[in-house]
Amino acid sequence: MSSDTAATSAAAKPVAAQYLQGLADDALVYAQRLGEWISRGPQIEEDMALANVGLDLLGQARVLLTRVGELDGTGRSEDDLAYFRDEREYRNVHLVEQERGDFGFEMARLLWFSAYQCELYAALRSSADEILAGVAAKALKEVTYHQDHAAQWVVRLGDGTEESHRRMHDALVAVQPYVAELFEDDPASSAAAEAGVGVLPSSLGEAVSARVAAVVEEATLSLPEPSRWRSRGGRDGIHSRPLGYLLAEMQHIARSHPGATW
Amino acid sequence: MSSDTAATSAAAKPVAAQYLQGLADDALVYAQRLGEWISRGPQIEEDMALANVGLDLLGQARVLLTRVGELDGTGRSEDDLAYFRDEREYRNVHLVEQERGDFGFEMARLLWFSAYQCELYAALRSSADEILAGVAAKALKEVTYHQDHAAQWVVRLGDGTEESHRRMHDALVAVQPYVAELFEDDPASSAAAEAGVGVLPSSLGEAVSARVAAVVEEATLSLPEPSRWRSRGGRDGIHSRPLGYLLAEMQHIARSHPGATW
Repeated sequence: MSSDTAATSAAAKPVAAQYLQGLADDALVYAQRLGEWISRGPQIEEDMALANVGLDLLGQARVLLTRVGELDGTGRSEDDLAYFRDEREYRNVHLVEQERGDFGFEMARLLWFSAYQCELYAALRSSADEILAGVAAKALKEVTYHQDHAAQWVVRLGDGTEESHRRMHDALVAVQPYVAELFEDDPASSAAAEAGVGVLPSSLGEAVSARVAAVVEEATLSLPEPSRWRSRGGRDGIHSRPLGYLLAEMQHIARSHPGATW
Repeated sequence: MSSDTAATSAAAKPVAAQYLQGLADDALVYAQRLGEWISRGPQIEEDMALANVGLDLLGQARVLLTRVGELDGTGRSEDDLAYFRDEREYRNVHLVEQERGDFGFEMARLLWFSAYQCELYAALRSSADEILAGVAAKALKEVTYHQDHAAQWVVRLGDGTEESHRRMHDALVAVQPYVAELFEDDPASSAAAEAGVGVLPSSLGEAVSARVAAVVEEATLSLPEPSRWRSRGGRDGIHSRPLGYLLAEMQHIARSHPGATW
């Protein structure tokens, strides 16, 4: 389907673009973080699995970024949007930009993020933006696998040795402050939901938490209490320090050779 | 086919294992280097392409390492062999362990290495070790794609702007000192060839060079003269400095948590 036939009305386009920018940046930034595992997993097989999860997310980011460029009227390409926006223009949540921790931290983060994406993409299959609806339907299969993968590890580690149980517990505690931001409505998502293009983040919280809670229980762990400090502001372009380093690394080559003929 | 039915004779097994160790380590180490591109390509699409090439090589390394563990009688797993050998026990050529350079360097390296693997796996399809023969037949399809991919970039850059032409030329010069080692016979490969399991590296040189020369000509470049200094010793476990850092990073997690139950 070409973008001309998609159902998003002219008025809704800028709003839809800003909403999609957040979803695209979540996937793009987390893909980079997962790529860092390519030589650092506990098993070669797991190296490959995490790299493949990252590549799925990079694929989602690419189609979402391309759609952003169509909707916002600037005609920017996926590469323009990935490589030539500054930190303040990135709209991802803080969860995905946090530095790589230990393997338990990564599995806790992946569990939350993939459970969130499962509910998100399931809802977006009926988006009024037909291109987004198509992307969501395809991506849902991928993120369902990601959640299964994370869940298997959380159970294996939580219901494992004394040390692995303790570390998996600590990992859930470490991730907790970044969870609430996933479910926070902001002006872009509210307007996109109003237009039938997006879904209200707050409407996803209960189902996502139920997914995570079921895994955590099977892992003989319990979900930590809500943390006192919690992250805020990613959807407004306010980020924590690790994103700057990540973007510097990601954007260095493209910016050194603008136009990428070289 | 189980390993018991493979045709490698008892006498040839240790020799075959040592020979395969070299091929496995080439693929394993280069997979790690290519993984470093996951957030550093000139385009998102290229990030994904190089990561996928790396994952193909990691897949080849896994089956080769598993076969090494069967043949050498130690019963070591792929993870034992990847994570618990020291630098002196790694048998890869120096080409694959060199640090990531610019994108042109990577395409020059990938062109040589994939052309080498094309000829290597084509020959190994008739190995007396039936498991190796099967691996080679499957891997040949992958590395044929890798060579096409590298060739496209070498031509695009060589036959591009003045700057890209100059940099692609410099990249070929930078890779040249590491090429001869690919085609050097050592005791393990000679014995493996004698047993019908392997192929003499020296027998591949002409065909590989012809593959590379054809691409270089299309790119309006010329192959550099043989370099005065050339690398040696990788198949004997003598390595350059970058391998130590690469292994430290790759092996850190597995060694911190031996047994990998955590």
